[in-house]
Amino acid sequence: MTAGKETDLWYAVIDEERQDRTGRPEAVYCEGKTLEQAEAVICRMREKGIPVLATRACEALALRIRGRFPDAAYDSLSRLLSVGVFCPAEERRGLVAVLAAGTSDLPAAREAALTAEFYGSTVRLICDVGVAGIHRLFERLPEIRAARVVVAAAGMEGALASVTAGLVSAPVIALPVSTGYGAAFGGLSALLGMLTACAPGVSVVNIDNGFGAGYQASQINLLGEGRGVPK
Amino acid sequence: MTAGKETDLWYAVIDEERQDRTGRPEAVYCEGKTLEQAEAVICRMREKGIPVLATRACEALALRIRGRFPDAAYDSLSRLLSVGVFCPAEERRGLVAVLAAGTSDLPAAREAALTAEFYGSTVRLICDVGVAGIHRLFERLPEIRAARVVVAAAGMEGALASVTAGLVSAPVIALPVSTGYGAAFGGLSALLGMLTACAPGVSVVNIDNGFGAGYQASQINLLGEGRGVPK
Amino acid sequence: MTAGKETDLWYAVIDEERQDRTGRPEAVYCEGKTLEQAEAVICRMREKGIPVLATRACEALALRIRGRFPDAAYDSLSRLLSVGVFCPAEERRGLVAVLAAGTSDLPAAREAALTAEFYGSTVRLICDVGVAGIHRLFERLPEIRAARVVVAAAGMEGALASVTAGLVSAPVIALPVSTGYGAAFGGLSALLGMLTACAPGVSVVNIDNGFGAGYQASQINLLGEGRGVPK
Amino acid sequence: MTAGKETDLWYAVIDEERQDRTGRPEAVYCEGKTLEQAEAVICRMREKGIPVLATRACEALALRIRGRFPDAAYDSLSRLLSVGVFCPAEERRGLVAVLAAGTSDLPAAREAALTAEFYGSTVRLICDVGVAGIHRLFERLPEIRAARVVVAAAGMEGALASVTAGLVSAPVIALPVSTGYGAAFGGLSALLGMLTACAPGVSVVNIDNGFGAGYQASQINLLGEGRGVPK
Amino acid sequence: MTAGKETDLWYAVIDEERQDRTGRPEAVYCEGKTLEQAEAVICRMREKGIPVLATRACEALALRIRGRFPDAAYDSLSRLLSVGVFCPAEERRGLVAVLAAGTSDLPAAREAALTAEFYGSTVRLICDVGVAGIHRLFERLPEIRAARVVVAAAGMEGALASVTAGLVSAPVIALPVSTGYGAAFGGLSALLGMLTACAPGVSVVNIDNGFGAGYQASQINLLGEGRGVPK
Amino acid sequence: MTAGKETDLWYAVIDEERQDRTGRPEAVYCEGKTLEQAEAVICRMREKGIPVLATRACEALALRIRGRFPDAAYDSLSRLLSVGVFCPAEERRGLVAVLAAGTSDLPAAREAALTAEFYGSTVRLICDVGVAGIHRLFERLPEIRAARVVVAAAGMEGALASVTAGLVSAPVIALPVSTGYGAAFGGLSALLGMLTACAPGVSVVNIDNGFGAGYQASQINLLGEGRGVPK
Amino acid sequence: MTAGKETDLWYAVIDEERQDRTGRPEAVYCEGKTLEQAEAVICRMREKGIPVLATRACEALALRIRGRFPDAAYDSLSRLLSVGVFCPAEERRGLVAVLAAGTSDLPAAREAALTAEFYGSTVRLICDVGVAGIHRLFERLPEIRAARVVVAAAGMEGALASVTAGLVSAPVIALPVSTGYGAAFGGLSALLGMLTACAPGVSVVNIDNGFGAGYQASQINLLGEGRGVPK
Amino acid sequence: MTAGKETDLWYAVIDEERQDRTGRPEAVYCEGKTLEQAEAVICRMREKGIPVLATRACEALALRIRGRFPDAAYDSLSRLLSVGVFCPAEERRGLVAVLAAGTSDLPAAREAALTAEFYGSTVRLICDVGVAGIHRLFERLPEIRAARVVVAAAGMEGALASVTAGLVSAPVIALPVSTGYGAAFGGLSALLGMLTACAPGVSVVNIDNGFGAGYQASQINLLGEGRGVPK
Repeated sequence: MTAGKETDLWYAVIDEERQDRTGRPEAVYCEGKTLEQAEAVICRMREKGIPVLATRACEALALRIRGRFPDAAYDSLSRLLSVGVFCPAEERRGLVAVLAAGTSDLPAAREAALTAEFYGSTVRLICDVGVAGIHRLFERLPEIRAARVVVAAAGMEGALASVTAGLVSAPVIALPVSTGYGAAFGGLSALLGMLTACAPGVSVVNIDNGFGAGYQASQINLLGEGRGVPK
Repeated sequence: MTAGKETDLWYAVIDEERQDRTGRPEAVYCEGKTLEQAEAVICRMREKGIPVLATRACEALALRIRGRFPDAAYDSLSRLLSVGVFCPAEERRGLVAVLAAGTSDLPAAREAALTAEFYGSTVRLICDVGVAGIHRLFERLPEIRAARVVVAAAGMEGALASVTAGLVSAPVIALPVSTGYGAAFGGLSALLGMLTACAPGVSVVNIDNGFGAGYQASQINLLGEGRGVPK
Repeated sequence: MTAGKETDLWYAVIDEERQDRTGRPEAVYCEGKTLEQAEAVICRMREKGIPVLATRACEALALRIRGRFPDAAYDSLSRLLSVGVFCPAEERRGLVAVLAAGTSDLPAAREAALTAEFYGSTVRLICDVGVAGIHRLFERLPEIRAARVVVAAAGMEGALASVTAGLVSAPVIALPVSTGYGAAFGGLSALLGMLTACAPGVSVVNIDNGFGAGYQASQINLLGEGRGVPK
Repeated sequence: MTAGKETDLWYAVIDEERQDRTGRPEAVYCEGKTLEQAEAVICRMREKGIPVLATRACEALALRIRGRFPDAAYDSLSRLLSVGVFCPAEERRGLVAVLAAGTSDLPAAREAALTAEFYGSTVRLICDVGVAGIHRLFERLPEIRAARVVVAAAGMEGALASVTAGLVSAPVIALPVSTGYGAAFGGLSALLGMLTACAPGVSVVNIDNGFGAGYQASQINLLGEGRGVPK
Repeated sequence: MTAGKETDLWYAVIDEERQDRTGRPEAVYCEGKTLEQAEAVICRMREKGIPVLATRACEALALRIRGRFPDAAYDSLSRLLSVGVFCPAEERRGLVAVLAAGTSDLPAAREAALTAEFYGSTVRLICDVGVAGIHRLFERLPEIRAARVVVAAAGMEGALASVTAGLVSAPVIALPVSTGYGAAFGGLSALLGMLTACAPGVSVVNIDNGFGAGYQASQINLLGEGRGVPK
Repeated sequence: MTAGKETDLWYAVIDEERQDRTGRPEAVYCEGKTLEQAEAVICRMREKGIPVLATRACEALALRIRGRFPDAAYDSLSRLLSVGVFCPAEERRGLVAVLAAGTSDLPAAREAALTAEFYGSTVRLICDVGVAGIHRLFERLPEIRAARVVVAAAGMEGALASVTAGLVSAPVIALPVSTGYGAAFGGLSALLGMLTACAPGVSVVNIDNGFGAGYQASQINLLGEGRGVPK
Repeated sequence: MTAGKETDLWYAVIDEERQDRTGRPEAVYCEGKTLEQAEAVICRMREKGIPVLATRACEALALRIRGRFPDAAYDSLSRLLSVGVFCPAEERRGLVAVLAAGTSDLPAAREAALTAEFYGSTVRLICDVGVAGIHRLFERLPEIRAARVVVAAAGMEGALASVTAGLVSAPVIALPVSTGYGAAFGGLSALLGMLTACAPGVSVVNIDNGFGAGYQASQINLLGEGRGVPK
Repeated sequence: MTAGKETDLWYAVIDEERQDRTGRPEAVYCEGKTLEQAEAVICRMREKGIPVLATRACEALALRIRGRFPDAAYDSLSRLLSVGVFCPAEERRGLVAVLAAGTSDLPAAREAALTAEFYGSTVRLICDVGVAGIHRLFERLPEIRAARVVVAAAGMEGALASVTAGLVSAPVIALPVSTGYGAAFGGLSALLGMLTACAPGVSVVNIDNGFGAGYQASQINLLGEGRGVPK
């Protein structure tokens, strides 16, 4: 069979114009790619000068990439791997609050937080404020209300999203997490709960999609900053 | 075919010993029965002196029964029909708090409240305390904390159960309600959310099963009262 | 049973502080309420001077309310009923683009558009730009790119959200619609498709929840306008 | 990113007031936490003098904790780990009967039994009384009827809950177990069966949630004892 | 378009050889057929001398058919319509016991009973023996044990099948019924419960498929009678 | 709000180029459109000379359209409405065989057959050849084998697709139908069965999507005819 | 906690009367039991002289048991382990035909065949007669028609059950198998297909429940033999 | 038990007539077969001169087979194993375009491509043309439009099928892939999205069924070539 393209990277097409169209470069989704494929895609992007954020990267890939690129950074909890810088730390703006209902929700919450930072937002990560001990949420309300956007990460019943949205004026991005067992059905219970939140001002991303939550939170945050204004 | 019993009520068997075994008489589930069948069952129970609580009774059945029994009472919101008295109002004891997250959850909540009263509990019904405006719940906390058992009725994401269970020492019976649309899936979302509540002290009944919630709440309440002690 | 409150509106609690907490007044969800309950809630809110947006209102309710309040407005396609004004038309700001994939998606799309207007946003509704004839979407791209937020309403497979998010820098609020039959499963197919959109920058609301999409779109839009900044 | 709290335990907040609010201290859910996180949380709680019940603890964690705390106890069947004592054995009161339909349901049933003991209840565990040989249940009825609360743990079709509730006056907490294969769908079949039990007096906890069943059984049991009365 | 057959009944093919192949004539499933189609099929079968059993027949069809065939018989509860006789009443053999858990399960149970009779079995219908009052089942055990095959019809959690199969040596055909609401999911809960019955000796037919249960019960029953032996 | 287009048909965009891109004009999906909207869309298409095939059209729409266009044709079984001619009957080519497992599957099968004819294929509709009487299928095999493409319409378990695909060399388009009840789940059972057919050479369209099956069958059929060759 | 029984086998109750009640001894379900528990149960049964059939037994258990009981037999394909003899080979009667659609369905089919033999039936196992090559089924029809009961084991779409039931007069026990991937959903697709089989004379057991299919097939088979007649 | 056939391959029946009936030889599905079974089936087919395509073959099987047959070929990405040649490379005809939305979709896409080649089609594999960067699809449109059939492989929301079908006149075989996580539900989301595609001209195969997609694509392609015409 022919692949129709004379190139050494026949299985992938770098979307070089993504940043022009959407204001942010393409990220690399590593699951389902072989180590070789993921590595080749990252290298090609770096050759073209595109800063890379790779999601769901395993340790083995991180090792390879760090061997090649000294500026690569890997966070094993969230499995995020970055190479190069899209927005320097000192230019981050606005404020995104990322809430995690419990310690077990940290991997997804942290993915959201690091993603929002990568794309240029200042982030505050606020942990273990689930509704079983709701005073813990109230204690952090001033910090949360200071944010332009809130990400609420929770597993099990995911009630944190509804409760938070009833308390703040900022938009809430709900991030259902696969924490839990039995009728949690791998995050489905939290997902449905967040989609049917009784308080308005909530929209939802895929289960465990910390990247998507952080990406959109940053889009919204910087809109408020007067940056990231759409073309 | 033969039904194997020479009786005019071949299609139903009154469980006369139910009260001896479980401390409470059998209730009549009207859905799926013809008007004639439901009426005949109720009459037979009254002949035997058993006080009747009939659930999901339609207006037409209520009309027929009230025509026959002057002491019949019908509540159209909850569709509960009672004939005869199991526990006189002045002998009700303890306290069951029934919470309804929103006005749309009232039919189920009211079924729970009236059922608990029928079986001998004092009941307080507290409406519209959903988590979208959580101060409304906090304002009623003293009343709720006075109860021996709490029923939390909610549709949509059903977060009321988790939040309440984190605030009181009484057991919480969660009553998922079919309020909502789309991903609420006829109460499934609330059901799953309540089953995976992050706060302990919650158990759950079937969607819209106000009868079941009120029944068990009364069982528990009167246990605390030193009545209804099991044999 | 006691309801614990000496008031004529025992079944509902107006959340008067909602606007203080979240910047916008409470809306009224009419499904599951009797006509009398819905009417009483709206009247009470008007007495307190709160502008009312009532969702999923039937014609009969609209008739009653318009008989009482000359400034009531009803849109039969989206079933939105408003009484009073939260933000005068001349003070609307920013731009929300609401896309409808097909004519059958209009009821939900229009609910989103009218909601965003109610809460103070300028809105452009762009119809019949589904991906089966994708040039129709491209023709409208300049208008869409002018918006600070995009709502993408679609039923069936809901591909409009993914495609749009790959073309614009604004955040996309995906609104799955129950258009379709068979494996569309009442909007579930569109919902899942939008949650797993291959392009980042998408978050999702409940099926047919035009109100929720319009509400959050307006939150985000006005953030970009320097208004609606959270406290 | 900032976590907003200058502390060595930024990822967890001990809910010290839980016992004041709900009469019982917080338990630790170990799944989804790293060994280090779980250990740190337990240590912090012990520093504050809070007795610890940790659920779903693996052997490795148990080893670490027992190395630090000589009074730690681990049950490998139920994966419960306790450190410190909430209620001394000699002060246990009332009676909770925990039924297991089959030997394969023991891990969940035992988690329920040990949890109820931890929180101060006397417990009787009655094994292998599933309905396939229903005389085994009848033989144990006197013991079961002596209890103030019954926990019925069963997998497959979960019929034990319905049958038991028709035979006793005590409330039944149904505990669906993931025993079975195929259409058992990891406990879903038992869960649905218990939610739709034809006998009243049943409420249900999450699949395999022995902790939740034991917790609520103890709440109810001690209510009957005149203890654990809500504030 | 052409239908490829020159006949007045182009949309249906009478399976005249069915009785030769399977020992019993074809039945007519009326749902989804127009009145005209159903009537024409029945007439054609009668012309060929085939005795007809039509399932899910509405009143209107019954009226039409009884107008044409004086020996037609219609049972409105089960919606079974028969024309002609496959096995005369005096030649019925063996014994099939059809159990109905509750009065609401009668339509399906009766369809099973009448079907088994049509195909030549003696039938005993035993009503209201659900497990909530299990003594009612025990009282009828001698009658049930006299049967060669047992059909157990139940909605809600469907526990009747498991309990019965543990008490008799005959094969049990479980017939899940759509009785119930909420998590009963239109009979799904009973279906799953019966498929995962903890007692062996149970097989299951489709929800509300009284016809299928009665058909197979009769097959088995007559096998025991030395009739209906396969070719 | 503005719709951004100065036109009397702001809610719909006729995809005039569809025929250029895909070789066939756009069809009109009537469900979810008001009568006025559907009528306006059809009129606009006729003004532009586009032949119209409208699916899921109700009688009321058919009446209106026939009042305006004398060449409109309506088939009430399949609810197809056509105005104008895309391919004259005498120019139809090739052969599509449309199989219906039972008479109840006719509405969907007929929609497939009429659609394939509209787009230029000769069609043979072969009814009541379900696998319960498999000789009926074998009798028609010569006709079926004469076709270039086979559409297999079936409800319930949908086995017709597998069996047919094992007997012919032509591609089989499987059309699951919502015939059946209980575990048929509105066609889901047939859909899953067809997707997992054990014989290769089967692909599947949406439940009850006779239009889609006929459309693709015609595409394939005419490819074999040397027409409809893609650009 | 107390287990309420002074015995070394507190976690299991041998149902010694099972054979009296149901004509066959209890089988041992090994999944979810520890090796020690399973071994102890088998030993206790052997002490009481009960012949043992253990299902889903792993190799390790088989090793242990064969070390203790020289007459133990283990089949690794079906994971059946037997100790002792319920019915000697020379006393087997009647005929059960077990069909496997494909080679991949053998483990379940073989479990059915060996179970039916254990309980006293003569069995013929007929492999690889799936409907993709339907002539293979027709070639074996004489053998199949010689059986009193047919077990049809199939994965994927499970069409074998429908087709077979249309060809024989014996009852068909459908055995859905988890063979397949994707939309086979672990056997769900076959299960639904068999439940909605368009031919009467089919009942269904749980996915991969070869034991259940063989058990009931043997019950029915021996009924036809004049044995196993119920008490 | 007897298997009823005196042969060394009692568990499998080679369908030697498959090519006569369907124009193509049987393929071997390896999952669920032991290595020995799979090997024996392949050897028997080769003895009879049948060219073999084996799907889902593991490395171990490939090793064994290549040790025996020098002309065996194995592709580890798609797990396809072939032995012998059905159609020599130089006789391949027509054109099938296989599109993969992302690099992670390659295993399924490649299985489709290699299958279509095996059965005699010329194939072009076009990678990484997902809708997130839709210009990548437009760039390849001329190549895609040159094909007689298009296979569109995509995971996540699967929008590639709808978009492509709106742009080409060729039939599109949609191949849902299990790429993704959370609400992708192992390819279910893509499957539903493809079944409800808003553009006509799409039919769908099972999740990850690259073999089925390639098989039917080749059937259709060669129909257009004037070959593979059905008998």
